[in-house]
Order: sequence, then structure tokens, then C-alpha cells
Amino acid sequence: MPDAKPFVLQCPLPVGNTGFVQLAHGGGGKLMHDLLEQMVLPLLGNPILESRHDGAVLAINGTRLAFTTDSYVVQPLFFPGGDIGTLAVNGTINDLAMCGARPLYLSAALILEEGLPLDTLSRVLASMRDAAKATGVQFVTGDTKVVDKGSGDQIFVNTAGIGVIEHQLTIAPSGARPGDAILLSGDVGRHGIAIMAVRQGLEFETTIESDCAPVVQPVLALLDAGFEVHCLRDLTRGGLATALIEIAETARLSIAIDESLIPVMEDVQGACEILGFDPLYLANEGRFVVFLPASRAADALKMLRAHSVSSGAVQIGNVGENAAARVTLRSRIGTLRVLEMLTGEQLPRIC
Amino acid sequence: MPDAKPFVLQCPLPVGNTGFVQLAHGGGGKLMHDLLEQMVLPLLGNPILESRHDGAVLAINGTRLAFTTDSYVVQPLFFPGGDIGTLAVNGTINDLAMCGARPLYLSAALILEEGLPLDTLSRVLASMRDAAKATGVQFVTGDTKVVDKGSGDQIFVNTAGIGVIEHQLTIAPSGARPGDAILLSGDVGRHGIAIMAVRQGLEFETTIESDCAPVVQPVLALLDAGFEVHCLRDLTRGGLATALIEIAETARLSIAIDESLIPVMEDVQGACEILGFDPLYLANEGRFVVFLPASRAADALKMLRAHSVSSGAVQIGNVGENAAARVTLRSRIGTLRVLEMLTGEQLPRIC
Repeated sequence: MPDAKPFVLQCPLPVGNTGFVQLAHGGGGKLMHDLLEQMVLPLLGNPILESRHDGAVLAINGTRLAFTTDSYVVQPLFFPGGDIGTLAVNGTINDLAMCGARPLYLSAALILEEGLPLDTLSRVLASMRDAAKATGVQFVTGDTKVVDKGSGDQIFVNTAGIGVIEHQLTIAPSGARPGDAILLSGDVGRHGIAIMAVRQGLEFETTIESDCAPVVQPVLALLDAGFEVHCLRDLTRGGLATALIEIAETARLSIAIDESLIPVMEDVQGACEILGFDPLYLANEGRFVVFLPASRAADALKMLRAHSVSSGAVQIGNVGENAAARVTLRSRIGTLRVLEMLTGEQLPRIC
Repeated sequence: MPDAKPFVLQCPLPVGNTGFVQLAHGGGGKLMHDLLEQMVLPLLGNPILESRHDGAVLAINGTRLAFTTDSYVVQPLFFPGGDIGTLAVNGTINDLAMCGARPLYLSAALILEEGLPLDTLSRVLASMRDAAKATGVQFVTGDTKVVDKGSGDQIFVNTAGIGVIEHQLTIAPSGARPGDAILLSGDVGRHGIAIMAVRQGLEFETTIESDCAPVVQPVLALLDAGFEVHCLRDLTRGGLATALIEIAETARLSIAIDESLIPVMEDVQGACEILGFDPLYLANEGRFVVFLPASRAADALKMLRAHSVSSGAVQIGNVGENAAARVTLRSRIGTLRVLEMLTGEQLPRIC
């Protein structure tokens, strides 16, 4: 074997760093943020990657495209409201939608563990087919790798996606503006609790289903109607709180939200109280926030509510005038609290 | 957990099928071919996916783009001549080049195993940076997931890539024509033996290095010079033999090649004889074949040889007139043999 290439970390080690990858490095919180900031971006970074968007916006021969990728490692593979296949399609097309793009094409790359039942693979592929069909996207390229038993975990799916941007807006975390209204497309925390309930064998009065769904239609409806959308963000790993903190930091502005305005299903709230989770940090797979001028908030909400996936849309807060780069939550009892990224891992392998 | 969706396999089970994923399903041979033909394509297929190309060719607003993806699960992570990072960049840009595209943008999706030393991750990322820089491509989007210890194997890397097609040719396996010359860009088998040597602790007089390299320059040189290229294919999993069999089957034509014309390094040949491998089936990561009209073969070879990565280019055979959809090899002693796809797995996790 050749000598190891000399490589020197050119920056301080991330908070909580032990020199080894921890589960929390994939959790969407502070450790993942630090890993990206302090290791990935210094090595691979460029202005497009550094925009910290859900996907990249590229201009090729005058056409604006969005390009994104995600790997899916969720356990269990099948859960109420979806499976790794629906997640792998909806997650990636939602990232394209968050760039304001119309999703067109997907790739599918499978890493299979030796011994996986072919029937399980078929079920996952069938879910991918159905989810792609539901949004009118096509799988156009792919790859299959097999690793020996014990070197993987049943099936990991990577999808990358390409979408086309058919408007002139620049939609990005840096695009949020003082005075913007912040709209949330529906209740939060369901995906996280649905996964947790299966893992822990928890039972509720009714089964809590993941919110996993494509959000392309309401987003394109807003854009086609000419709403001046400044920023879109889906609320996956790290949940609503982390998404807003990242936007506040990237745009260097202050965000104020009101806890009493944030919808949480009663069973989800109950599970969170028992398990010690905060629903604002739980992953969602069919929820997003929209930043746009407050004067258009009421009309935009009306349009969002006309689509079933965002029928519970509400305004949860506003962007303030100062550049404090932080998110303040007014609690149900009226106290104010600054939201922080989580350092540890709430729920590993949620997507 | 919800009931399993009913799913019925609508086709006979693949050859050698046990109902479970086997290592050979990822080996590039017969089992992988059958898995794609009989399970993936019936579920996810469409005309673009069914072109069986190294990537998809898409037309968006009049611009032709290539789009491709591969996951990399090679073990060991570091080997003579490269590592999983160089492989993940060169493999994907080579697939774009095989579509006749100029590679522009890459995504990077990492699946890390808990406990991976951050220093190992840094070395892989540094290799990805260097390989991207060498071909002038940018990483523009990415993803990081972490799986618990024992559910992965150090690091898996997925890259997807986008390239632009700047000519009017249709380059595809179906594009090979009777009368075409078949050019091979250099000696075969080095990547496979380099990996095997590290795994098995084999020593040779000189270290056999992987041929891992970008092949973009000689390919674009041919295209820029106006050569009427019909088909390009890189010789990764399954090697030269499998690539030619796939082209013969897709284009429904007969291919004749001459073993004595196929360059194999002496040490590679020796290792193959000891280990019982056929170099024609070993993976390469910087080798490709070109199909073009025989009248232009000499000029094309001259151009290929001007680039160091293809300085050993030779003509190894021709496309015949009949539609037998098979590859015939004339051996060094003059006998004729029809090449078949391998059913088992020669070398798992080669890329």
C-alpha cells in the first residue's frame, strides 16, 4: 500500500471533535454544520457550493438548472407513510423545488448488502417508480453496487436530480429580506416521530404517519403566479429550527417566530413530551418554509392552502430589521428564547 | 409497520437467482445484467434509461447535456495509483466523456461509518479536490450521512455529474456500425490487479498501479477534430470483454477482436495466470474503446497517442457485417472463441 498522502487540517477541529466521525455528524445540527464549514468547504468549496442551498443553481448555455443530490440510509426501510424509495424520490425533487426549479430527471444509485431479499429490492424500486410517476419525473441513469454482508445495511439509495428554472428570481437562503413574512406549509415533526415509533415499538391512538410527500405543486403554483419568493427551504434533518437558524446565519438577519402559530399534531406533541424531543428540531419530509414580502403573505397562504400537501399553511413569523443572524422564538407563555443548533443527535438515520 | 405492498415479479427470475442479492449482482457480469434487465428496467425504465449508456443524454431548452451517477465502495480505500476519492471523480467524469460530453459539475454524497477517522475523510476529500481540479470540474452540491458502526464500511462515495455536449453526433452503444474499427486506449487489467494485490498482500517486481485517470482530454480532442465517433465505452466493472459484449448486444452486430493486439502489462499477465483471472474481464479505470469508421482509424490513433493517458492506443478489431450480437476473440494461437459474460464475481468491490 502506498504511503498516506500528507494532509494537514488547516483549521481548528469542530466542536465536540474526537477525531472520529460520530452519528451527530450526520444529524443536521451543529456537528454536521461544523464538519461542512471546517472540512468539506475548505477542500471542495466554491461560490456555488458555498451558497448553502438545498441544491446548486447552474447556468448552462443561458438555461438555468438546479442540481442536487441526497443519499438515503433510513432505518427501518418501510415506515407508516412511506419507505426509503418514496423518501429517495420526494426528498430530491423537494430539494429541486426549493431552488424554484421544475424537477425533470433523476438518477438512482443503489448500494445493496449481500443477502438482501430481492423482494425487498423490488418493493423499494416499485415505490421509486410510483413516486417518480406522481411528480412526472424520469429516472434516466443509475448504478448498482453490492457490498459484502455486514459492510452495509440492506439498502442505501442515492438520487441526484436535475430541474429547470423557468423564472427570473434568485431564490436562496441569502435572499431573505427584512420585512419578509415566513410561511410554514403545515404541521411539523411527523416524519421524525413516525420513524421513532416504529423503531421503539411505540403505539399511539392512531398511527402517526410520515409527512413524506412531494411539495413541487404548491411551490410552482406560487412561482407561476408571479409571487416574489425570496427563499424556500424544506425542513428535513434538523427540522424547522435548524433551517431557520441556517437562513438567519447565511442572510445575516434576525428571525422572530411564534411557537403558538406552529402547528404540531396532538399525538406528535404527546410523543415529544414523553420522549423528550422538541418538535421544532424533528425531521419532516413534506414541509417547507417560504420567505416573501409580508404584503403578499395572505394571498400566498391562500394559494398554498389550495394544495393538499400544504393545506395547513400558516404564517409563523417575520424577518426583523437587524442583522443579529439569529432566530428568536416567542413561547406559548410569552417568553422569548434564542434558538440554537443541536450539538448531539436526536434521531440518527431519519432519512 | 404497514403491510407490505403487493409486488409481483412480472418476469422469470434472473439466472443463478436465489431470491437474495449476491456479490455478483454488483460485479458487472451476467447477474448484474439480468438484475437490470429483469427487475430495474421493467420498473424504472424509459427510452433514455434503456439506451444502456454510461450516462443519460438529455435535451433541455435546446442544450444537450449528459448526466450520470456512480457510487464507489472500493476496498481498500487507498491503493497504488489512487484511492476512493480519485476514483469517485475520474469514474464519473469518464462516464460523461463516454457520452461525448465536456464534464462541468459534480455532486458529492458521502455515507460515513461512525468511528471513521476524520483524517481518513480529509485525505479522501483532498483527493476529490485534486482530481476535480485536474479536469476543471466543480463540486456544486453534496450530502453527508452517517450510519452506525457496523452498518457501513468506512466511507462510500456517490458522485453524479453533468456535462455539456458540444457537437451534433449521437454517441451510444446502439451507434456502432458494421465496418467500424475498434480502438482501445491502452493496456488492460491494471486496476483490478492493483486492488487484488493490496487485498491479498501480493508482491510483484514493481508495484502494479491502478490505471485510474481522467480520459476526457483525448476524447474531446477526437470530437473537436471532427472524427465521426459512433460509440465510446469505458472499461470498468466487467472489463473489455463485458463492454464489447454489451455493445454487440445493444447494437445487434458482431464484433471480432484479436487477443494478440490487446496490450497487457507483463506483471498483470503474470498475476492473472497465477490467480486464474482473464485480463479481458478485469476492471480498468482509465481505459476506453472507440468505435469509428475504419478509414479514420489511423488518424484517430495518432491523435489518441498524443495524450499520455491514451499513449498506448491500438486497434484491436472491427465490427463485422452480420447481426449475430456477439464478440469473437481470435486467440494468440489462432483459435476462435465467443466471449460470454461472467456469471460469478471475479473481484467484488473493485470500484
